[in-house]
Amino acid sequence: MAMFDLPLAELETYAPEVSEPEDFDAFWSATLDEARGHALAPTVEPVDNRLALVDSYDVTFAGAGGAPVRAWLHVPAGATGPLPTVVQYHGYSGGRGLPHSSTIWAQAGYAHLSMDTRGQGWNGGGGSSTADASADAGINHAPGFMTSGILDPATYYYRRVYTDAVRMLELTQDHPLLDARRVVVTGGSQGGGLALAAAGLAPLAGIELAGCAPDVPFLCHFARAVALTDRHPYREIAQYLAGWRDHADAAFRTLSYVDGVNLAKRAVAPALFSVALMDLTCPPSTVYAAYNHYRGADKQINVYPYNDHEGGEAYQVAAQLDWVAERFAG
Amino acid sequence: MAMFDLPLAELETYAPEVSEPEDFDAFWSATLDEARGHALAPTVEPVDNRLALVDSYDVTFAGAGGAPVRAWLHVPAGATGPLPTVVQYHGYSGGRGLPHSSTIWAQAGYAHLSMDTRGQGWNGGGGSSTADASADAGINHAPGFMTSGILDPATYYYRRVYTDAVRMLELTQDHPLLDARRVVVTGGSQGGGLALAAAGLAPLAGIELAGCAPDVPFLCHFARAVALTDRHPYREIAQYLAGWRDHADAAFRTLSYVDGVNLAKRAVAPALFSVALMDLTCPPSTVYAAYNHYRGADKQINVYPYNDHEGGEAYQVAAQLDWVAERFAG
Amino acid sequence: MAMFDLPLAELETYAPEVSEPEDFDAFWSATLDEARGHALAPTVEPVDNRLALVDSYDVTFAGAGGAPVRAWLHVPAGATGPLPTVVQYHGYSGGRGLPHSSTIWAQAGYAHLSMDTRGQGWNGGGGSSTADASADAGINHAPGFMTSGILDPATYYYRRVYTDAVRMLELTQDHPLLDARRVVVTGGSQGGGLALAAAGLAPLAGIELAGCAPDVPFLCHFARAVALTDRHPYREIAQYLAGWRDHADAAFRTLSYVDGVNLAKRAVAPALFSVALMDLTCPPSTVYAAYNHYRGADKQINVYPYNDHEGGEAYQVAAQLDWVAERFAG
Amino acid sequence: MAMFDLPLAELETYAPEVSEPEDFDAFWSATLDEARGHALAPTVEPVDNRLALVDSYDVTFAGAGGAPVRAWLHVPAGATGPLPTVVQYHGYSGGRGLPHSSTIWAQAGYAHLSMDTRGQGWNGGGGSSTADASADAGINHAPGFMTSGILDPATYYYRRVYTDAVRMLELTQDHPLLDARRVVVTGGSQGGGLALAAAGLAPLAGIELAGCAPDVPFLCHFARAVALTDRHPYREIAQYLAGWRDHADAAFRTLSYVDGVNLAKRAVAPALFSVALMDLTCPPSTVYAAYNHYRGADKQINVYPYNDHEGGEAYQVAAQLDWVAERFAG
Amino acid sequence: MAMFDLPLAELETYAPEVSEPEDFDAFWSATLDEARGHALAPTVEPVDNRLALVDSYDVTFAGAGGAPVRAWLHVPAGATGPLPTVVQYHGYSGGRGLPHSSTIWAQAGYAHLSMDTRGQGWNGGGGSSTADASADAGINHAPGFMTSGILDPATYYYRRVYTDAVRMLELTQDHPLLDARRVVVTGGSQGGGLALAAAGLAPLAGIELAGCAPDVPFLCHFARAVALTDRHPYREIAQYLAGWRDHADAAFRTLSYVDGVNLAKRAVAPALFSVALMDLTCPPSTVYAAYNHYRGADKQINVYPYNDHEGGEAYQVAAQLDWVAERFAG
Amino acid sequence: MAMFDLPLAELETYAPEVSEPEDFDAFWSATLDEARGHALAPTVEPVDNRLALVDSYDVTFAGAGGAPVRAWLHVPAGATGPLPTVVQYHGYSGGRGLPHSSTIWAQAGYAHLSMDTRGQGWNGGGGSSTADASADAGINHAPGFMTSGILDPATYYYRRVYTDAVRMLELTQDHPLLDARRVVVTGGSQGGGLALAAAGLAPLAGIELAGCAPDVPFLCHFARAVALTDRHPYREIAQYLAGWRDHADAAFRTLSYVDGVNLAKRAVAPALFSVALMDLTCPPSTVYAAYNHYRGADKQINVYPYNDHEGGEAYQVAAQLDWVAERFAG
Repeated sequence: MAMFDLPLAELETYAPEVSEPEDFDAFWSATLDEARGHALAPTVEPVDNRLALVDSYDVTFAGAGGAPVRAWLHVPAGATGPLPTVVQYHGYSGGRGLPHSSTIWAQAGYAHLSMDTRGQGWNGGGGSSTADASADAGINHAPGFMTSGILDPATYYYRRVYTDAVRMLELTQDHPLLDARRVVVTGGSQGGGLALAAAGLAPLAGIELAGCAPDVPFLCHFARAVALTDRHPYREIAQYLAGWRDHADAAFRTLSYVDGVNLAKRAVAPALFSVALMDLTCPPSTVYAAYNHYRGADKQINVYPYNDHEGGEAYQVAAQLDWVAERFAG
Repeated sequence: MAMFDLPLAELETYAPEVSEPEDFDAFWSATLDEARGHALAPTVEPVDNRLALVDSYDVTFAGAGGAPVRAWLHVPAGATGPLPTVVQYHGYSGGRGLPHSSTIWAQAGYAHLSMDTRGQGWNGGGGSSTADASADAGINHAPGFMTSGILDPATYYYRRVYTDAVRMLELTQDHPLLDARRVVVTGGSQGGGLALAAAGLAPLAGIELAGCAPDVPFLCHFARAVALTDRHPYREIAQYLAGWRDHADAAFRTLSYVDGVNLAKRAVAPALFSVALMDLTCPPSTVYAAYNHYRGADKQINVYPYNDHEGGEAYQVAAQLDWVAERFAG
Repeated sequence: MAMFDLPLAELETYAPEVSEPEDFDAFWSATLDEARGHALAPTVEPVDNRLALVDSYDVTFAGAGGAPVRAWLHVPAGATGPLPTVVQYHGYSGGRGLPHSSTIWAQAGYAHLSMDTRGQGWNGGGGSSTADASADAGINHAPGFMTSGILDPATYYYRRVYTDAVRMLELTQDHPLLDARRVVVTGGSQGGGLALAAAGLAPLAGIELAGCAPDVPFLCHFARAVALTDRHPYREIAQYLAGWRDHADAAFRTLSYVDGVNLAKRAVAPALFSVALMDLTCPPSTVYAAYNHYRGADKQINVYPYNDHEGGEAYQVAAQLDWVAERFAG
Repeated sequence: MAMFDLPLAELETYAPEVSEPEDFDAFWSATLDEARGHALAPTVEPVDNRLALVDSYDVTFAGAGGAPVRAWLHVPAGATGPLPTVVQYHGYSGGRGLPHSSTIWAQAGYAHLSMDTRGQGWNGGGGSSTADASADAGINHAPGFMTSGILDPATYYYRRVYTDAVRMLELTQDHPLLDARRVVVTGGSQGGGLALAAAGLAPLAGIELAGCAPDVPFLCHFARAVALTDRHPYREIAQYLAGWRDHADAAFRTLSYVDGVNLAKRAVAPALFSVALMDLTCPPSTVYAAYNHYRGADKQINVYPYNDHEGGEAYQVAAQLDWVAERFAG
Repeated sequence: MAMFDLPLAELETYAPEVSEPEDFDAFWSATLDEARGHALAPTVEPVDNRLALVDSYDVTFAGAGGAPVRAWLHVPAGATGPLPTVVQYHGYSGGRGLPHSSTIWAQAGYAHLSMDTRGQGWNGGGGSSTADASADAGINHAPGFMTSGILDPATYYYRRVYTDAVRMLELTQDHPLLDARRVVVTGGSQGGGLALAAAGLAPLAGIELAGCAPDVPFLCHFARAVALTDRHPYREIAQYLAGWRDHADAAFRTLSYVDGVNLAKRAVAPALFSVALMDLTCPPSTVYAAYNHYRGADKQINVYPYNDHEGGEAYQVAAQLDWVAERFAG
Repeated sequence: MAMFDLPLAELETYAPEVSEPEDFDAFWSATLDEARGHALAPTVEPVDNRLALVDSYDVTFAGAGGAPVRAWLHVPAGATGPLPTVVQYHGYSGGRGLPHSSTIWAQAGYAHLSMDTRGQGWNGGGGSSTADASADAGINHAPGFMTSGILDPATYYYRRVYTDAVRMLELTQDHPLLDARRVVVTGGSQGGGLALAAAGLAPLAGIELAGCAPDVPFLCHFARAVALTDRHPYREIAQYLAGWRDHADAAFRTLSYVDGVNLAKRAVAPALFSVALMDLTCPPSTVYAAYNHYRGADKQINVYPYNDHEGGEAYQVAAQLDWVAERFAG
């Protein structure tokens, strides 16, 4: 069925109860504290991106467990800052890629940070990569990252990735090229889930964001997603539970710590979401579950009725370019 | 079978006989002459692309039959030219899209022309489009553009598109922003086929190109392609001939006028090809058929053994950035 | 899901509101008037069909824009008329085919008119074809005919086809072989949609039909169809709107002028529909939307619960043979 | 949709009306009486199973129509009986296979009877097979067994198979190795349907079972199953009715005689069901329809939320080993 | 791969060794003798086909084992004969259908016999059917008819069907409506295989045919077909042997008795074949294997390069209409 | 194509050159030495398997890096040993599962060791699991295990797994239940690859095996496998290299250290292989590459022509039961 989820009218008010652990905030406070036990220790080295209009830097900082996490920093050629900054997280399977791959926010005149997702990046490759340098990475799981360490929130893969995402924000708070007061987070799919995570955890980290722009975000309302779609990557969870039939309770408890709905409840930055009504990868009800629970009152969502997971693509980029310009001007 | 075509060692010397009509050059000379009967009449209007580092212009010129063809012209912000110029043609289903969608060659410091493909563009949309404004467009065909007017080279869709591609080159020869002596043509898939067409017809049009960089080019060695792959868009031809069973001779005669192999035989610009050995859309033997017949001696081909039609993507862009810089420096 | 649409009990009373433009009748009156500006100018030439029992004629008449539209006329060998007449329209991708392909109504003793669909016919081929001879045919669209010229009812492909269908009826009103007072229209899928269109526009054209027998009709309740099914050809619309994301309002406005539901509201001839409950090409709710809105009170619908788009096939032909015999006898 | 059927909360009380013929019991009494007209005439021959811990016997007895039906009898090596007995029926396409293939109940210390399904067995093969030795087997049907003889309950394939299943039980009532008072029936998919049939018909046959353990049972609530799933083997019924469009009433009347729901209504043995919520082969609502109608009050059902038709596999075997041990100890 | 089989140039001389049992002729002589032990006992009853131009008769005769086999006989309305006769056999899954379904040869002025295939017919249904009334039908097999009784040529399904096909010819030799000296056999796919069988066995039966016109014939060169294609129905054989891994020798020995190649070696009637080069159901090399071994010197083959199993359809019917007219005129 | 690989006659002599690193033996000697730096420290604890005829023990030993690796040890109930021993490795995605899941070799009277594959086991689950407790597990890779740490033989996943497999053998050399002189290794698919690895490395480890019985082994001749099949898990390698286009040389160098062909060249135990000619997961030429290079002269291979990756299943188990009995008797 082309539009397989709830009708749009129902989606617009869909705000389901989603399980939230009592110690959610304590868990993340402790997690971020632990991460801060490793000095952020950023390195920002110029790199040849083959472009005349953009300067790129190869950034490394200490993510979860102190592991080195890579990012690109792109700025207008010759810029000295501080510049309003857009932090981009990437979709499942992707990563920062090659230096010239994605520079849209630098072209718009801002600083553009593009963070690697640890362990991922096979779809697109790139000159270097960020390993998931954790002993927990080898815990039994179905192929992919969705169930890596899923039996315990402490060992779960996305605990590390969300931590990386927050540490990336910490880097924006203290660098001469970056304007710490004007930071927007964005990304599509998993990148949208990470943008939500960053926005939801930013208050805990004492960081104020100027905006959060998640597109067709992944990692929201897992229970519904797993019941609703056969598509990867949500499907990885069902695949795991189809084998380990007695691990469902533990797995969903872990997922409640990283559920985008619970993070949205804590996010206060102005928000621009997008959703696609034929999206079988990130079903629209899971996106609306996060959107309708999003705490910040200054929020909007662009609806693409006839799109699958590609969502709005260049149309949404155009909308974001306008919206971010207003955020930075405001 | 993952690598379904000839082994690489055989591909490297694969130069099959491909049917070439006797009046090939006469046909194209007459076609270009006819096109020149319409004044090129370019308009180049500034447009807001939402970017700080790039200036974009909305270009219109008279293509085949005098029909208005659209393109974007992107240049470094504030540039006054003349700049070395890269002309980009687009893949089947695509078009120039929105002004911010694709600016890589401007970012590299060049003028970047991005030409619409008439009638196409549904995959990605955009703020405007280029119609295939020809009475011949309504001639019976299978869905898609491959068989539109296929029974006669005079009415065939790609006759019009190839003409547009050449007229785009004519525009580069006389505009203050563009350096007429340093023009490279490029594109992937159909865009690669059009780059080959432009390079093959440029001598007829009296234009000297600095380079031709077709990626995984489409529109080459139709007879083999149709026999070898079930994938669209080549499949559209088999789909048409499966119904009109008595039109094969006429159709393949028409195709011989636009076969990338025959165009390659006439192309003299330095060339950088790419090919993917698991490419079911543009099988590697059809690419090598064009490459091995390419007339210019200064040619090379980058091989991506484990890729399907996505080919080299950012890796090939990196290779092109280096190669184009050398061409323009040379 | 095998039966993916509403349960039969709900289908039987399903009569949704479907958007109808205020100027619907004015639009079609003007359209038909414009068509009549071209003389119908029918030619009816005998053709060798290789059959002993049936005489066939190659018919040409001026369709929309005066373009020549082809049809076969089959009659019992030696018949001189006037004969009760069945007009058959064809399914998407098809056409009148070869002279011997489809003669069932002639075998039943009637005149059988089998009209080509302009631009189509690739599935089956045939000795000749009917081009969509219109400058509007080249307007940008997704592959196929569903979105050709869709941004304006004046340029939309089906405006021309519906006009052809009515002009075919005009031909039945003034030919010695045909009994103008006993004309039934029929067809399956797109042919069913055209039969509905013919029946809905016949009153405007001052033609009284003896019956309308659409099988699993296409072109009904587009908004629901596009949301409900991923199958082509309805899918072509979603495919187009997935790219041109800002064209949905214009497209659906255009579609409201050709929606079989709106045409059914104006059709008064006795009707025999068929519907298949597992039909993913023409979902049963879209068929019932037209059936339940069909204006004529003398109507019935045959339900095939376990069939996909093939519907009743020979069983429905048998039902039609009986029903048409009654209509012509009545 | 991953969980395509009713939500679990609704499934737990789903007890739909299912058509039951008035002469259901009379039909089966007559059928079993007719079968008893052939002497059971069991033969039990030792066979080399290549195993040290298990003795296997090749069993033959007179099934429906007196046809020879094969089974394996596995017992702990050297056992002389009488042993508590587990009768296993097999899934669609399977059969008893080779002697060493499946011995779990003998490993647990019981007698293990594994009955062939007449005509089937192509998936797995084996050293011998049980033919569906009936003239009715050649009656027109869609490929497979679901529609063989479906127009009349007297000729229907499953009438013969259900009879075989009951005759297998009769064998357990009079053999020195088997304890007639402690017999449990089990099986997965079709084997689960046969276990239900055996449990439902056992009272008619004057046999008291110690338990019935159907896993993801097939052959339940055909009307819903055929409307709900496109998967084989239920799909065979839709496939048949898609051709013979006028046979639906007769076919569903026949199916009502073998519907697991109607059999469950008559089954009194303690029961352990299993169901999988993503099971597209045997949709969960069809399983719950039988479970909720199951007459015996001592019943339970294990739910596997993330599994397709594989259901609980080794997890359910573990549950059965415990449950059967309790039944036999009780 | 679109053209997955040998290149056309190799196909044209492809005449592989195919296993032929020594007692091939003896087997078929005995089989036909045994069949003749049952009186043919044809009944030919008029039936209402709802058509004015064609008279239809419901025919029954004693096929293999004396089982009643059904056929339609269509003749021009009012014809009294004797008429040249075309015998049509049907494709796998089909049957004679409803009386109005297929009358092309009657329309051409001939007697048209359309024979049911025993046990089949689910695809299309019809008012009645021909059961495979044989005790052997219940022997274990994979779903479908390809492996029914395959372990012994005496019990194999196609032994019975080929016998029916010959008995149908016997009927043509002694009926007032039919001209025994002008009989052509034809059919597509399985119907083509049966036409080959009829032509190959006709000499044994003392019948002289005027022509044999098999389209994309099935049942030829089984060993290659099973190794070459995954498509049903050839796939049924691999499916069976995948389970019963030790039955391959017996199965292929049986198949050698019905292999169209061996029957073609014995066929002497003038022949018109057709073949499609993208036919995955009946791969072209299996068709050419039969064609190149066809004994009659007056043979031709129409090649459809871009078609899958649909082959030439109406184009081939046109060719047949011409060719048959010549045969009957000759 | 059903049989997509080389014809059987060519397979039987197919012994391609496969890249072998010069330091192959040094690498593995060092690897095993390093592993032996951790005491094997086996624990063997009785566990309730719910079976009467088999005693099961939960085994843990120090695998690669000293990580705890789990296995089941099944023996005939009450056995005290030493017993001839069969070591079973498991297919990709599987693991030792639940204690009752697989006991065939204990049923045959032997000790049966069933080793977990570190990190895997999602397909089937089980009460416990073996983590891939290595910091290298988090190195970037495509989903699955094939490319985990693939850029360096020192970090590659299968280096650890092969080491586990050898350490499992070490355990057999010193346990009162096990007869160190009579040990056979076996397994299907990945389990077959591990059996080959164990047999190939056993001489290095100073262990003499009584037999090696790999079924449809995986992990052989990677270069051909990756070029030949699109099926997972080999496909994971192409998926990785499609992104990281510049890592092919490093990856294939690493794979040469674990290539089953190179292991087979060193294996001297008597061998019983199996191969399936329609196996798209482990193409037959990759199996024959290992078989034909297998060093031990006492070898045979069972061919299943009509099977995909399921291979011989129970038929091959039967063959193994006989063959192992002979090995242990010898």
